[in-house]
Amino acid sequence: MSLSSEQQTEIEAARAASHTTRRPTVAELEEQLFNAVPVLDHGFVRVVDYMGDDSAVVQAARVSYGRGTRRALEDEGLIRYLMRHYHSTPFEMCEIKFHVKLPIFVARQWIRHRTANVNEYSARYSILDKDFYLPAPEQMAKQSTDNRQGRGEVLDAEITARVLGLLRQDAEQTYGHYEDMLGDEVGLARELARMNLTLNTYTQWYWKTDLHNLFHFLRLRADSHAQYEIRVYAEAMLKLTEAWVPLSYKAFCDYRLGAVTFSAKMLDCVKKMLAGEAVTQETSGLSKREWAEFYAALGRV
Amino acid sequence: MSLSSEQQTEIEAARAASHTTRRPTVAELEEQLFNAVPVLDHGFVRVVDYMGDDSAVVQAARVSYGRGTRRALEDEGLIRYLMRHYHSTPFEMCEIKFHVKLPIFVARQWIRHRTANVNEYSARYSILDKDFYLPAPEQMAKQSTDNRQGRGEVLDAEITARVLGLLRQDAEQTYGHYEDMLGDEVGLARELARMNLTLNTYTQWYWKTDLHNLFHFLRLRADSHAQYEIRVYAEAMLKLTEAWVPLSYKAFCDYRLGAVTFSAKMLDCVKKMLAGEAVTQETSGLSKREWAEFYAALGRV
Amino acid sequence: MSLSSEQQTEIEAARAASHTTRRPTVAELEEQLFNAVPVLDHGFVRVVDYMGDDSAVVQAARVSYGRGTRRALEDEGLIRYLMRHYHSTPFEMCEIKFHVKLPIFVARQWIRHRTANVNEYSARYSILDKDFYLPAPEQMAKQSTDNRQGRGEVLDAEITARVLGLLRQDAEQTYGHYEDMLGDEVGLARELARMNLTLNTYTQWYWKTDLHNLFHFLRLRADSHAQYEIRVYAEAMLKLTEAWVPLSYKAFCDYRLGAVTFSAKMLDCVKKMLAGEAVTQETSGLSKREWAEFYAALGRV
Amino acid sequence: MSLSSEQQTEIEAARAASHTTRRPTVAELEEQLFNAVPVLDHGFVRVVDYMGDDSAVVQAARVSYGRGTRRALEDEGLIRYLMRHYHSTPFEMCEIKFHVKLPIFVARQWIRHRTANVNEYSARYSILDKDFYLPAPEQMAKQSTDNRQGRGEVLDAEITARVLGLLRQDAEQTYGHYEDMLGDEVGLARELARMNLTLNTYTQWYWKTDLHNLFHFLRLRADSHAQYEIRVYAEAMLKLTEAWVPLSYKAFCDYRLGAVTFSAKMLDCVKKMLAGEAVTQETSGLSKREWAEFYAALGRV
Repeated sequence: MSLSSEQQTEIEAARAASHTTRRPTVAELEEQLFNAVPVLDHGFVRVVDYMGDDSAVVQAARVSYGRGTRRALEDEGLIRYLMRHYHSTPFEMCEIKFHVKLPIFVARQWIRHRTANVNEYSARYSILDKDFYLPAPEQMAKQSTDNRQGRGEVLDAEITARVLGLLRQDAEQTYGHYEDMLGDEVGLARELARMNLTLNTYTQWYWKTDLHNLFHFLRLRADSHAQYEIRVYAEAMLKLTEAWVPLSYKAFCDYRLGAVTFSAKMLDCVKKMLAGEAVTQETSGLSKREWAEFYAALGRV
Repeated sequence: MSLSSEQQTEIEAARAASHTTRRPTVAELEEQLFNAVPVLDHGFVRVVDYMGDDSAVVQAARVSYGRGTRRALEDEGLIRYLMRHYHSTPFEMCEIKFHVKLPIFVARQWIRHRTANVNEYSARYSILDKDFYLPAPEQMAKQSTDNRQGRGEVLDAEITARVLGLLRQDAEQTYGHYEDMLGDEVGLARELARMNLTLNTYTQWYWKTDLHNLFHFLRLRADSHAQYEIRVYAEAMLKLTEAWVPLSYKAFCDYRLGAVTFSAKMLDCVKKMLAGEAVTQETSGLSKREWAEFYAALGRV
Repeated sequence: MSLSSEQQTEIEAARAASHTTRRPTVAELEEQLFNAVPVLDHGFVRVVDYMGDDSAVVQAARVSYGRGTRRALEDEGLIRYLMRHYHSTPFEMCEIKFHVKLPIFVARQWIRHRTANVNEYSARYSILDKDFYLPAPEQMAKQSTDNRQGRGEVLDAEITARVLGLLRQDAEQTYGHYEDMLGDEVGLARELARMNLTLNTYTQWYWKTDLHNLFHFLRLRADSHAQYEIRVYAEAMLKLTEAWVPLSYKAFCDYRLGAVTFSAKMLDCVKKMLAGEAVTQETSGLSKREWAEFYAALGRV
Repeated sequence: MSLSSEQQTEIEAARAASHTTRRPTVAELEEQLFNAVPVLDHGFVRVVDYMGDDSAVVQAARVSYGRGTRRALEDEGLIRYLMRHYHSTPFEMCEIKFHVKLPIFVARQWIRHRTANVNEYSARYSILDKDFYLPAPEQMAKQSTDNRQGRGEVLDAEITARVLGLLRQDAEQTYGHYEDMLGDEVGLARELARMNLTLNTYTQWYWKTDLHNLFHFLRLRADSHAQYEIRVYAEAMLKLTEAWVPLSYKAFCDYRLGAVTFSAKMLDCVKKMLAGEAVTQETSGLSKREWAEFYAALGRV
């Protein structure tokens, strides 16, 4: 993580503040507020503001005048019910704002989630820092042979070193030329010079969304099929979410993250198997790929 | 306003709470937090949560590590610049949540603003209160003769009394039958019985949006062409917004609420008039209606 | 259905048109284009325009220069893959526009789907027709005893007749007064008079959405837990969707409509049961309600 | 523009198709359908599908059963009224789909418009073509001295040649290494290798939006303050939009593109000036920057 001492000082100053409010607060999240959680080699994610807590979900579902909560057990039951039956609007009543530093190619995946508010550091207006992502050697993987958009086995050490060398060299060189173009001698417009940077250059943004859409993001991006470089951000955010709304988080883990959806045909297979019938891919009505996914979901090989 | 003593007690309990937070707080809004501001005969609007303040706009625009603020004057200048040039994303970084009680026909206009989160009191799940809107006599206006969707002069007192009598009688009667249908003797499903209610029955909801979309809502609904019954809600919300983000609010008043947009042709007329040329509707290239709007904007008759 | 002969003539005129286009067309949907499919006692749904077909999904997924299709089998496989793995954006590339006539209380549920474009008939601007929904006797059901937002058994015939009488009488009376208020003698503004109408009054709108969001709407509203009065619209739209994009529709039926999602705990139960272990609600870790839902999903009682 | 002969053939095949439809068609747009309009050195924009025409706007505003149009003059008047008074929903009833090839740094600006559907060519799944943007010499401008996010005067020829040399060399080299990483010898996963590409590499996508949101995009991106590299796309799209919906386009030009918004204070100045009063920046209440913008809008210097 590349926080300058000036940035660290700014963060410390924000953390030192203490205000009195009538709004609900979440002690576990306050504890982590503004702190930068390191992700990848120079990135981070930090919570810079939040609104609402588990009770706000309950309160909205009941359209109540006060805090809307009853016994803890009833509240948890209601939250689980809402999650299980896809009642998404009460979860939209909680909001969270992150400050994220991330490689541009990750930002390009991330921005596809449209139901969020974003302010990105502007390379038209300012000069980007000299920070670029270089994968750790254990992340230098081959193209997967059976998944057109995935990774396979790790490259051998010698090739890894060579490729990392190329990545570093190209990033250094293009950034150097970027600086040259912006220098006094040339003075090229920033909005043009930036085009010479590579996609592993770090950018940063403020990203704000509601709890429902955050869960949607996390379900897709904390998934094992998500690209590693975005998954690590999602994993850091999962922990922050758990600190913020522990009951909603638990329901999310049970009904989304750890859940499995069976198609009509797959459900049919389950029923037959439970009835003691032997089912094979050939008799299942499923394609080979679906059968493999089905079997994996059942924990079989 | 029809707050039961139980509801009032719930609100007081919420107001009595005091928490410590690292988040920015706004004393002027905290003062009003949870309080129900009366609107129409039985409605209200109240702020139940908020996130961010004027500085959050500045902070997002600067993608800063700390509070992001500099001298007060610079901050205000930046906010005005952002508003003037339609940089909407920094204003999206503030969020506010209202609890509103409003007639169903107003709710139907309101819900057309899609960029918001809503939880409405469910008449499938619960029984609606016996509250319905009856206009004050000075609001009992004739259909406008020159605006197909507006009001003209006020009805005379005798007719007003008669019409108010019909409105009251029909609302009472349909609500009475609604109760009968729900009673033990019949026991009709709530999701069916509700269809007998009139459109002036009050409903309520939690409504949450960001500052940019709130401004958009307020510009359209606090406008003199908006229907009176939604405009009074917008006006109450304008005051709450001023308490929350005074600098953004001021910029909004100057660049949106009090601003005027001249079409290419209208701008042409202004230029000619400033050059001392006489311009009439006939020579303006504007339709009669446009000319009237143009003249009104210039404060002429 | 209450189409006036004038409206029927307009529809016939639109159906008689024939144009030449380079755009893909779908013969099965063209056949039904503009036709009003009756729903409930006076409602309808009709397709008034569409864009794209199954191939457009494939084309977008492949970002192709031409039609993007290969062998039919490959195309269907791709569509099924996209649906199974929640790749929603290719389905967003198809768009459809409906004209719907529906009771106001149904419209209020429907409008909660925000990712759509809507133009509703304006009761500020025009006078609503005298059409209101009266349920068929077999739909006059009691409040469910085990589901707070559902229906139970049908009312007995005598009570049904009495309640239908009340619904009819109240709708007739309030509409009559609505007409009086709008009449020459009073001339109340339309935007005010409308508040006297009951929630079963029919309104109508143009509603346009993309295929992904249409599927989302249909999954929730064609579900057995949806209120009957909106479900019948969803069912009519399912048929039109099948005519439009048969391959996508089939994948939707398999992976969404007929699919079931098991929570982490439910999946655990399935695994144990397949391993021959006896699992009861008590040992399952599921609540009674979840266990009932789980058992129902497996087709057991 | 870099269309391979294979791509050109695909386009020709699509253009050769001719179907019969009951849907409204627009001959002027059909004429251009599928054709790639060149933009920048290797980019293009082409319309691949559309839905609706000027009459669809009218039809939706009137919620009509047939085509909804009356006399041409009335229709145009209605469209102008809707545009002038910000009635946006009828314009949402028209939809258009573009296929665009554009540099990644332009795509990153473009994607900030969230109310659109996008399918981008996937560099996880496929290999990006060797196409990168090099500005024409007359676009090689210095950083503006008075606008932190704009361009000033053009660089001198010698420096331009040197900078273009750097841009070309860096793009060639990083692309070459990208190919090496993907080659048999290394076989790095595509999702990793892509990070070595520079931001001027071309990508492509399908981009679909409705007419209201298209106008919003065009107003911001065809504006003289927009970066040149995105403005040229907007300008090409303006022409296609004119072919598609000529009446809406004309209203858009008058009430948006050529319009000017005066703040409350600016309007005050106009009124004073029209009354013959001398107004200077000092007496205007406007900041220096605002005064300059105000004067420019009035065509003064």
